[in-house]
Amino acid sequence: MVGADLLGYNGAKALTYVEELLESVAQRLRPSPETLEKAKLYAEKLVKSVEELFGPGTASVEGSFARGTMVRSREEVDIFIHFKPETPVERAAEDVLKRGTELVKNLGGTVRLRYASHPYVEGFLEGLRVNLVPCYDTEYGKWITPVDRTPYHTRYVKSVLDERMADEVRLLKAFLMNDGLYGAEIRNKGFSGYVCELLIIRFGSFLQLVRQASGWKPPVVLDGEKPMSPASAITLLDPVDKTRNAAAAVSLTTLSKLIMKSKLFLKEPSDSYFLSRTSFKPSVEGRCFLAVVLDVPERPPDVLWGELTKTLEGLAKALSGYGFKPLRTDRWFEDGKGLLIFELESLSLPQVYLHTGPPVWSMNAVEFIDEQARKQDLAAYPWVEGERLCSLRRRRFTNAADFVKHLIDGDLASFSKNLRPFLKKSKIYTNLDEVYSAMSEEGRIFLDDFVRTCPNFIAQYHSLG
Amino acid sequence: MVGADLLGYNGAKALTYVEELLESVAQRLRPSPETLEKAKLYAEKLVKSVEELFGPGTASVEGSFARGTMVRSREEVDIFIHFKPETPVERAAEDVLKRGTELVKNLGGTVRLRYASHPYVEGFLEGLRVNLVPCYDTEYGKWITPVDRTPYHTRYVKSVLDERMADEVRLLKAFLMNDGLYGAEIRNKGFSGYVCELLIIRFGSFLQLVRQASGWKPPVVLDGEKPMSPASAITLLDPVDKTRNAAAAVSLTTLSKLIMKSKLFLKEPSDSYFLSRTSFKPSVEGRCFLAVVLDVPERPPDVLWGELTKTLEGLAKALSGYGFKPLRTDRWFEDGKGLLIFELESLSLPQVYLHTGPPVWSMNAVEFIDEQARKQDLAAYPWVEGERLCSLRRRRFTNAADFVKHLIDGDLASFSKNLRPFLKKSKIYTNLDEVYSAMSEEGRIFLDDFVRTCPNFIAQYHSLG
Repeated sequence: MVGADLLGYNGAKALTYVEELLESVAQRLRPSPETLEKAKLYAEKLVKSVEELFGPGTASVEGSFARGTMVRSREEVDIFIHFKPETPVERAAEDVLKRGTELVKNLGGTVRLRYASHPYVEGFLEGLRVNLVPCYDTEYGKWITPVDRTPYHTRYVKSVLDERMADEVRLLKAFLMNDGLYGAEIRNKGFSGYVCELLIIRFGSFLQLVRQASGWKPPVVLDGEKPMSPASAITLLDPVDKTRNAAAAVSLTTLSKLIMKSKLFLKEPSDSYFLSRTSFKPSVEGRCFLAVVLDVPERPPDVLWGELTKTLEGLAKALSGYGFKPLRTDRWFEDGKGLLIFELESLSLPQVYLHTGPPVWSMNAVEFIDEQARKQDLAAYPWVEGERLCSLRRRRFTNAADFVKHLIDGDLASFSKNLRPFLKKSKIYTNLDEVYSAMSEEGRIFLDDFVRTCPNFIAQYHSLG
Repeated sequence: MVGADLLGYNGAKALTYVEELLESVAQRLRPSPETLEKAKLYAEKLVKSVEELFGPGTASVEGSFARGTMVRSREEVDIFIHFKPETPVERAAEDVLKRGTELVKNLGGTVRLRYASHPYVEGFLEGLRVNLVPCYDTEYGKWITPVDRTPYHTRYVKSVLDERMADEVRLLKAFLMNDGLYGAEIRNKGFSGYVCELLIIRFGSFLQLVRQASGWKPPVVLDGEKPMSPASAITLLDPVDKTRNAAAAVSLTTLSKLIMKSKLFLKEPSDSYFLSRTSFKPSVEGRCFLAVVLDVPERPPDVLWGELTKTLEGLAKALSGYGFKPLRTDRWFEDGKGLLIFELESLSLPQVYLHTGPPVWSMNAVEFIDEQARKQDLAAYPWVEGERLCSLRRRRFTNAADFVKHLIDGDLASFSKNLRPFLKKSKIYTNLDEVYSAMSEEGRIFLDDFVRTCPNFIAQYHSLG
């Protein structure tokens, strides 16, 4: 392949190739002039409407539209509605939800209420997504809500970023989006748009960043600082607030995927890493899946992702502690339906297990022998191996689905409290076809990804599907 | 129970009970006057015959008969034939085997050639077992064969032991014999007759010894010395040769069984610990056994036990390394038939297993991804979990019997070289009934013990069978 091996010897020739490749991808990532025109039009209308309703100077345009880093087919306009610090948070939210909704409807659009860290209104105007988000005009650093920093971020990015760099940001965003590494929400634990902008500002171009990233070893600390928290996979200071790690949301797995994808991209550059998803269907022969399908309550997405994650981890820990081996786990929800899924080494366990008792010389050696004889689940009487007493015991559950049902029925694992009543009515599947049948189209795509195991970029590198 | 709880409060009363119990057991352990008479008669005849054949002063009476510590129904007479140090070991052995055999036959007996550390002749005269053993009259400490110390042991023990203490030795021997803890051969890794005598000399009585032993914590070092080897479970200096640990053959498991049995005996004293074996048949439901049945070559027993042990351990290690869990293992042979037996947690393994690759930041992360794609046994393509790459692989063997056959056919485990050709023709069973069918009566008793898991003394303590 012409462009192969950027990590290796054919540097100069490969560089021309990859630059041409990136230029052609960047072109495809720029929003169309018509969409930009539409976005501009609606941004102006929204600012005007907000100021009519909330007072002059209360509206600002933020986000990727304001910064010129929007990615084609992901176009959206963020309008922030500014409140004075003395306004109670609940009132500001209520105001935005109620009057923002009216406002979008008056412009001929439809709305959906959304929640990130706090509620906002998502509207659709001729297919263009617009967000109306409440924020506070506070003194610098005295943020009331996390989005109060955003206008500062916008101002900073706009002051630094030019057209060429906006292309580089789009390349990075698409590179991340294509593998679910984009977005700081708890769902993805990925890179926010702002972090993408900061990384391009820091490294100058997408290619420079990817070259650096391909050599990273977590924990990564940029700017020669110490990690702000030992738990941070990557530390990247927010130029607007130097007490804050802008990349705090990035998980170790997400960061590691970027590192690995960077290596593979440099080895075999291709536009598929930005623009296409694999449809490779792997073999499932001999593999074991267990799924818990449940109705989920109407809650802010971040809260629900958190609750599903906690429940997933609680179940995985209990399964593992009992002897089942969860090899991989994931969770998903959409439109009131949730899914916890596990790939297990096996759906069944041996009937008996070795129970290791105390050494013969310990105070309770005789007691152990007395006790074992009374156990209902004793499979074989104690013996002496080396200096230890052992016995064989019977497992109460040898079937993973029965065990999970038992955990759920008895609240015997660390579950999200809010999900408990929904878990009790959940269905447990171990047949993958049945899980597919229980899922929506969106859910099936998630399930395909889970069953495939490898991320898009590895499938593409392997030329799968 | 009257005698219960010697470890607890009812000391005085219990002591009377246990002393009466031991006295009655000791009575039953003494050889009958008739047998003693017979042993005495044959000892004299044998000494006479040996001296006629090998010269005056070449015969001595050794062992438990000479020391007066024989246990009823285990009666035997050891005659040592003394050679001068200049006689080559092979010639001495040949002489004893050839002329000793004639000698026993001339007295109307039958013979069997036996080997311990070196060959000897075992004869039967009216049901009495007699052993003709070659040894050397060497300077003190300059032993040529291990049994050259024996005449010194006999002299030492006879000089110290009286009638009462002989009873105590018999109690200890029977206590150990009843659970296979007696005999220093590699089969039992237990206490020799001489060690039993030394222990009684050291502690004064069986009961005193058992009281001490119930409080031992291995490694046990008697006489306040340091252990002579860090591998010794118990160190007991040989009064005849103070550079030697008389109890070197005792394994940690054997010693631990003595400790545990001592505790249980003191808690609930009973004559069953000396004189009866349980016939308890445990449930085998859900338990998994794998047996290798093979013809074994004609070899000295100690050598063959060693070879079987090495092969057993090699197989167990390979099974365990592959993912099977050997919970217990043992080996046995008799009359040309050998058995290696394993209790496994399961006879089958899941089809797939988690293969953990390098971290994404390592030099060979890309190589790992390249390699995995070429693997025939790849079950799912690599993914990123935390900072690591992982993949799913298929096991070539999911069935324990197939795997063991593969190991044997390919010489893929640490087997005794001499047993290899016999292993190749072995049969592998996973059905316990079929193993029983393939065994002799002796083999079935061994198998019963293995399946029962617990030693006699624990079965008796639990009142099983």
